[in-house]
Amino acid sequence: MATTLITGGTVVSSTGRARADVLIDGETIAAVLEPGSVLLGTELTSAVDTVIDATGKYVIPGGIDAHTHMQMPFGGTEASDTFETGTRAAAWGGTTTIVDFAIQSYGEKVQDGLAAWHEKAAGNCAIDYGFHQIIGDVNEESLRAMDGLLDEGVSSFKLFMAYPGVFLSNDGQILQAMQKSAATGLMTMMHAENGSAIDVFAQQLVKDGYTEPYYHGVSRPWQMEEEATHRAIMLANLTGAPLYVVHVSAKQAVGQIATARDNGQNVYGETCPQYLYLSLEDNLGAEGFEGAKWVCSTPLRSKHEHHQDQLWQALRTNDIQMVSTDHCPFCMKGQKELGVGNFTKIPNGIGSVEHRMDLLYQGVVNGHISLERWVEITSTTPARMFGMYGKKGVIQPGADADILVYDPNGHTSIGYEKTHHMNLDYSAYEGYEIDGHVDTVLSRGKVVVDDNQYLGAKGDGRFIKRGLSQYLI
Amino acid sequence: MATTLITGGTVVSSTGRARADVLIDGETIAAVLEPGSVLLGTELTSAVDTVIDATGKYVIPGGIDAHTHMQMPFGGTEASDTFETGTRAAAWGGTTTIVDFAIQSYGEKVQDGLAAWHEKAAGNCAIDYGFHQIIGDVNEESLRAMDGLLDEGVSSFKLFMAYPGVFLSNDGQILQAMQKSAATGLMTMMHAENGSAIDVFAQQLVKDGYTEPYYHGVSRPWQMEEEATHRAIMLANLTGAPLYVVHVSAKQAVGQIATARDNGQNVYGETCPQYLYLSLEDNLGAEGFEGAKWVCSTPLRSKHEHHQDQLWQALRTNDIQMVSTDHCPFCMKGQKELGVGNFTKIPNGIGSVEHRMDLLYQGVVNGHISLERWVEITSTTPARMFGMYGKKGVIQPGADADILVYDPNGHTSIGYEKTHHMNLDYSAYEGYEIDGHVDTVLSRGKVVVDDNQYLGAKGDGRFIKRGLSQYLI
Amino acid sequence: MATTLITGGTVVSSTGRARADVLIDGETIAAVLEPGSVLLGTELTSAVDTVIDATGKYVIPGGIDAHTHMQMPFGGTEASDTFETGTRAAAWGGTTTIVDFAIQSYGEKVQDGLAAWHEKAAGNCAIDYGFHQIIGDVNEESLRAMDGLLDEGVSSFKLFMAYPGVFLSNDGQILQAMQKSAATGLMTMMHAENGSAIDVFAQQLVKDGYTEPYYHGVSRPWQMEEEATHRAIMLANLTGAPLYVVHVSAKQAVGQIATARDNGQNVYGETCPQYLYLSLEDNLGAEGFEGAKWVCSTPLRSKHEHHQDQLWQALRTNDIQMVSTDHCPFCMKGQKELGVGNFTKIPNGIGSVEHRMDLLYQGVVNGHISLERWVEITSTTPARMFGMYGKKGVIQPGADADILVYDPNGHTSIGYEKTHHMNLDYSAYEGYEIDGHVDTVLSRGKVVVDDNQYLGAKGDGRFIKRGLSQYLI
Amino acid sequence: MATTLITGGTVVSSTGRARADVLIDGETIAAVLEPGSVLLGTELTSAVDTVIDATGKYVIPGGIDAHTHMQMPFGGTEASDTFETGTRAAAWGGTTTIVDFAIQSYGEKVQDGLAAWHEKAAGNCAIDYGFHQIIGDVNEESLRAMDGLLDEGVSSFKLFMAYPGVFLSNDGQILQAMQKSAATGLMTMMHAENGSAIDVFAQQLVKDGYTEPYYHGVSRPWQMEEEATHRAIMLANLTGAPLYVVHVSAKQAVGQIATARDNGQNVYGETCPQYLYLSLEDNLGAEGFEGAKWVCSTPLRSKHEHHQDQLWQALRTNDIQMVSTDHCPFCMKGQKELGVGNFTKIPNGIGSVEHRMDLLYQGVVNGHISLERWVEITSTTPARMFGMYGKKGVIQPGADADILVYDPNGHTSIGYEKTHHMNLDYSAYEGYEIDGHVDTVLSRGKVVVDDNQYLGAKGDGRFIKRGLSQYLI
Repeated sequence: MATTLITGGTVVSSTGRARADVLIDGETIAAVLEPGSVLLGTELTSAVDTVIDATGKYVIPGGIDAHTHMQMPFGGTEASDTFETGTRAAAWGGTTTIVDFAIQSYGEKVQDGLAAWHEKAAGNCAIDYGFHQIIGDVNEESLRAMDGLLDEGVSSFKLFMAYPGVFLSNDGQILQAMQKSAATGLMTMMHAENGSAIDVFAQQLVKDGYTEPYYHGVSRPWQMEEEATHRAIMLANLTGAPLYVVHVSAKQAVGQIATARDNGQNVYGETCPQYLYLSLEDNLGAEGFEGAKWVCSTPLRSKHEHHQDQLWQALRTNDIQMVSTDHCPFCMKGQKELGVGNFTKIPNGIGSVEHRMDLLYQGVVNGHISLERWVEITSTTPARMFGMYGKKGVIQPGADADILVYDPNGHTSIGYEKTHHMNLDYSAYEGYEIDGHVDTVLSRGKVVVDDNQYLGAKGDGRFIKRGLSQYLI
Repeated sequence: MATTLITGGTVVSSTGRARADVLIDGETIAAVLEPGSVLLGTELTSAVDTVIDATGKYVIPGGIDAHTHMQMPFGGTEASDTFETGTRAAAWGGTTTIVDFAIQSYGEKVQDGLAAWHEKAAGNCAIDYGFHQIIGDVNEESLRAMDGLLDEGVSSFKLFMAYPGVFLSNDGQILQAMQKSAATGLMTMMHAENGSAIDVFAQQLVKDGYTEPYYHGVSRPWQMEEEATHRAIMLANLTGAPLYVVHVSAKQAVGQIATARDNGQNVYGETCPQYLYLSLEDNLGAEGFEGAKWVCSTPLRSKHEHHQDQLWQALRTNDIQMVSTDHCPFCMKGQKELGVGNFTKIPNGIGSVEHRMDLLYQGVVNGHISLERWVEITSTTPARMFGMYGKKGVIQPGADADILVYDPNGHTSIGYEKTHHMNLDYSAYEGYEIDGHVDTVLSRGKVVVDDNQYLGAKGDGRFIKRGLSQYLI
Repeated sequence: MATTLITGGTVVSSTGRARADVLIDGETIAAVLEPGSVLLGTELTSAVDTVIDATGKYVIPGGIDAHTHMQMPFGGTEASDTFETGTRAAAWGGTTTIVDFAIQSYGEKVQDGLAAWHEKAAGNCAIDYGFHQIIGDVNEESLRAMDGLLDEGVSSFKLFMAYPGVFLSNDGQILQAMQKSAATGLMTMMHAENGSAIDVFAQQLVKDGYTEPYYHGVSRPWQMEEEATHRAIMLANLTGAPLYVVHVSAKQAVGQIATARDNGQNVYGETCPQYLYLSLEDNLGAEGFEGAKWVCSTPLRSKHEHHQDQLWQALRTNDIQMVSTDHCPFCMKGQKELGVGNFTKIPNGIGSVEHRMDLLYQGVVNGHISLERWVEITSTTPARMFGMYGKKGVIQPGADADILVYDPNGHTSIGYEKTHHMNLDYSAYEGYEIDGHVDTVLSRGKVVVDDNQYLGAKGDGRFIKRGLSQYLI
Repeated sequence: MATTLITGGTVVSSTGRARADVLIDGETIAAVLEPGSVLLGTELTSAVDTVIDATGKYVIPGGIDAHTHMQMPFGGTEASDTFETGTRAAAWGGTTTIVDFAIQSYGEKVQDGLAAWHEKAAGNCAIDYGFHQIIGDVNEESLRAMDGLLDEGVSSFKLFMAYPGVFLSNDGQILQAMQKSAATGLMTMMHAENGSAIDVFAQQLVKDGYTEPYYHGVSRPWQMEEEATHRAIMLANLTGAPLYVVHVSAKQAVGQIATARDNGQNVYGETCPQYLYLSLEDNLGAEGFEGAKWVCSTPLRSKHEHHQDQLWQALRTNDIQMVSTDHCPFCMKGQKELGVGNFTKIPNGIGSVEHRMDLLYQGVVNGHISLERWVEITSTTPARMFGMYGKKGVIQPGADADILVYDPNGHTSIGYEKTHHMNLDYSAYEGYEIDGHVDTVLSRGKVVVDDNQYLGAKGDGRFIKRGLSQYLI
């Protein structure tokens, strides 16, 4: 098998950084070594097939985006990125693993949902991928089916407290699924918004003529996220289930998570770049129908309430453990447009799988987080949280050679006409400038992106069988 | 330089574990490699000078005990372990670095205090050592002297809110020292007990005839630790100083630290094995004068108040970040005896530098913490907290080869007649049984303990110049 | 009209006590005067028709029990006290006002429910009575009907988060009802338990053979009360509705209420004597089917979790504002028996309308609350909370002469064979001894109980048209 | 003795209001009666000596200002109001009782301090007055002297955590005084600011050239009030002493008090009108030396931090129980001027004894508090808190006829040239307009203010022997 040496760089882990070389043998990392070309008398640079010069650059484990929705059906349309286009865009952005959501819809079998998603993804992905399982219909049969998920390499499932009549599980159903979670060790993931109240509120707004995208945000107030977060925490407390709250956007929800964690409960939270950078007023409130670009749930929050500051702080204090994208792109044309005149009809989602590593690195530049914390929240913790650590999320012998060489002296301009490889007819971060650059990306030892060129191929990516969470306390 | 290969073991870091070999070249780690004997065609086992078989064992960074007091003067006597005996005992227990406290006493110059401690330690230590600086007299001169500490490799200083007339700094003094801390980056360490109230209370108890060791605990109630902890936090909040609270024993003090951390403040807490295992009733309350063995400050807390459970939980939730010993041994004979008939005269301190790694490993066995967390709280975080990470606290290329090979199938019986190398005429943990064993200990590449034999020498240890904390958020 | 003078007693209000005489003219209080028989030269004792000697006794406003369910249909049977028997028992116990619950059942009109309850009560009551309105079916029609409630003298309505399929309102319905509450000023009352989860849990228990009354308590854990309490608070926060949580039994629910109140929200909590005195283990866990006597919801809590202490404390700190009974008696024979072999079939309820004043007075004797607080939580606050103050809940000119003369030197033995006037075939407080005695009870100037004799008549009591809450902050 | 009837008004208590007449016989209230002129056939208006028509007005218990400093020595000068001028101004403003502070200075005897204050006040006061005792030197002798205070009618004492070298008690002293408080029932009052840190900070500011009045506020940051408040709470928790924190100005200190109260501790807080209306920026920061007018401690807080909103809210939620003035006036000329060029030399204090009732009534008009709460926080609670209830703070038979007839249709313009009777050469509330007016003031039955005329006389006021607090939970 081919050997590669990444030399001269600074290897950054979640706890620190070191000048070190990384030796790759085939698909995995063979050694991490003192910089320089000699090991016990062997000139390594001449002994390997390929040498990558990482001088002045950071060498970090490839990004792991634990929350994506490629080609997901939603409201009569489908997320515009396929597994092919979406994972390729991910690779462009330094992300080497995604965990997408297989869906069991109401009335379906869990196994069938999972099989359908395997079919969509197999042979199409640019990078490795895993699945969480959405349980859209908690019943005796689906509860039994959950017993088999771990053997399938699916160690986590997601429930919804939002979207009544579509995905919403009532509290009795959540109780049962969490009992299963506690018994099997599967991680319970939760979309925590009070959908019952929100839907009534949204209908009132539409009825009263408040139909613009802005009112999508108004219809989903922080109280309804905080409430559902607390409710999920209490059901987890009762059952003993580990709980992972997805796309946390309200500081008050962070507060609920922090309190549960202080009490020793296995409760975790994820936020997304959109909640760290975008706002109700500046984005959802953009003129005309423009705001539709940023319709997602949980919604963007008011900048006057200081949610962003609190989310960055929670990333520092580990009250929020990681950042995923909730990548779920819909084009303005033909998709977002479905909601002209009625915000409740706008497909929910933002596409950013390509920009997560850059946007978070900018958080380092801006002084929000440390370089080590960047690695932790984008790769190491996602790997540990979802049972992939050892293969993913770390640069150590035996791990998959998923590696990102990132240049802190480079620059990246985000924009539809610039760096944009997602199948999406706009950029949610148009005009954002990043003081760094994704230089080289290796996926299991293969260079897939280098020097602004895509060198990978459809089908490079393989399904990852994940184990139980390695992050529980 | 001599080369060593530790082979066949499981390398454990603070985030996970991996089967890996460790190659040592002289005093530092040269590489971490996939297990097996061949790297790019080289048979490593035959290429190195020494092979250590770690099959079935954990290979972890050597323990770092960030809180010891070797041969410290106290109440007319001196801690019974010298730097020689104390550091040797530490090595026996798998600890390869200590950070001791140089003392500026009232009326002294800071530089003189530091110099005196250098003199005590130089050439006598079995393992590497650093110094924190106790500032016992905050005044214009000592404040100026603090500007030079970092250049001396002393990146932290300690103040006392206890011991009026000896070490106590009043709040105006603390304010000034913390302003210095904020300006220089030096970590403020704090003994957080309200000494003014405690001393009055203690004198009342003695006057009323409550003179036994048990009343040492009674005289220092949790309210006075919680209070001082909160006061230190508020002074740190005001000045912007990073704050590290030593020997936290009360759950309510943990609560204050957790709250400050939730608010994003750089506040940290250390606890010690005695607070995790021993109690007011069972130990301080032992018959006759026996309880004197466990007189230390902060004191052992009541087992009826569930402090131990909360401290273990805080170690899991990272509300407490690390465990040191506050090693400060005094023999019963001739030392502790000074306090017969008056608990206030008993020298304060417990000796346990030898047992920290074992006692905390037992926490893994008992299900209190994970294996990774064991490594984190005993080595990785201490290194980061006090500016040594990279050289210490991690197994990675370039790091000092301070390594502990720990056997989870071994066994250790603690007791004065058994494993006891401290210069102390009793064991504070007599009869404790540990389901693991310190097998081999390397200090900067040299095997100093192996197979229950001490192979090191006086003077092996060198002074470590530390940098600023690498743990700030 | 007849005049009465209550002389020689100590008038106790919620803020203090004073030696004073009370002059009654017909149905209302005409004056409160300095003790003694002369006012501006008039000999009062000789000028009035009746003199009641209250020397050595407390003269307080008659008790107000704001939560009763007379002859309420439940689970195929009906609460065993009629308005006639129940209000007479109330009078025996020093309670001169009840507020009962008119029910709008699913599919019914609100007006019809209210009318039905008027019919049950009219002409039958021994003391004055008001109605809260249960809204069992929130829909457009019932929401409109709520606009008329205040004109009917019904200034509060109750929703249920428990009892799916019977009374439960989902969160969207609660949102709408609370919007109405905020708009009209009607007080929202809430049964705060997560019925969806509880019912699943209860069915699991029964299926697994846990059918005894004890498991009624197990099936309704504190987490499900705390959760629903928080959810109600957040919906109230969102809508601006004032919220009154009925029958709080879990200390954690108290915590949620306290937090909301600290934040300035108009949130209130009521507890009941059963939660202050009885427990899961000692009562629900009684041998055989005996525990059925104490099946009520929220359930009795575990004595090992210190809920009682916290509830008494909350009564002191005003985190809980008042005590009602939730009087809803079912006889063991023919009623509670319905649940032999299946605790979910046991009618929920305890009868104690007769004993509330005594049981709470015992709280004064036992040092839990002050004498003034006794008056406040049993009479003054209920009157203010539910818009009756001025007529009820206070001894002042113009108020209804609803007065209790209570003897602190008397004694009351509670028991089925002793003081028991409720239509209930057992006493929930059998064997309780009270260090005080209800001596004389006046309802609108008429002596209805005196010297252990009932002097009132069916129909003495009249409907009270209540106004908006006088307790909002 | 002369009789008076106040007729036609609305009597307001802390729990509600009622149309009622008040009959006064000599110095005390004889009866509260239904409005109208006939009682048992007697025409009251013709039977009494004096009739006061209160039609359309509020009849409330006279104001009690529990925190004043008449002619108090401070920093080489003396508060500019004597007991004569200050109490007369109080009467003008509807306040009929003050509690002033007798001072034991360092090295003095408690008894001597108290005697000195008796001498200053006796025969000079316009209204009744009591004393708290400042303990400026906690030692064995003063602790013994505290045992005699209650017999002297002094049921409360005050300690300082500020003013090192003048009044500051260290924590050991506070501990002892609080032990005495717990043993005797005397209320501990606390000036809660960390004087040790503040004084260092203030000296640094002056040294660095920040000498204007504004920096008085900067030198006493909220952290130092919050800290001291928490410290006092913990010492009270340890000793069991009831604690009353004076002049609370920081919302964070309110938070500490609220937490302690939620935990069931007997902790209380007072705020003052200046913290509800004035701010660091608008007042202390006034141009030139003008800000000196508002130099007081605790200081005015920043309006950008929302302390005022939180204080009003705390008054609603009863996290703060009452409002006093901390009346301590110093003229600009000759007094405040002492601090030109050095804010630390400005005498600390604001004069507002005359305006408290008006300023708080404006809080009713502005919707901050209810009418009932106005009465509670200005009169009823002060009376209960400090052991005067029954005689003061309530309109009921037997109480002193200290009554304020307040006209909600009147108007008051505050200003030095307008309504200003304090001996102070400026008004701290110049230009404030009040939508109400003090019409008639009775002190023990004597009309002392009526129709903007002062009818009282020097020496009308008598010393009040107070009992233990009637407000403890």
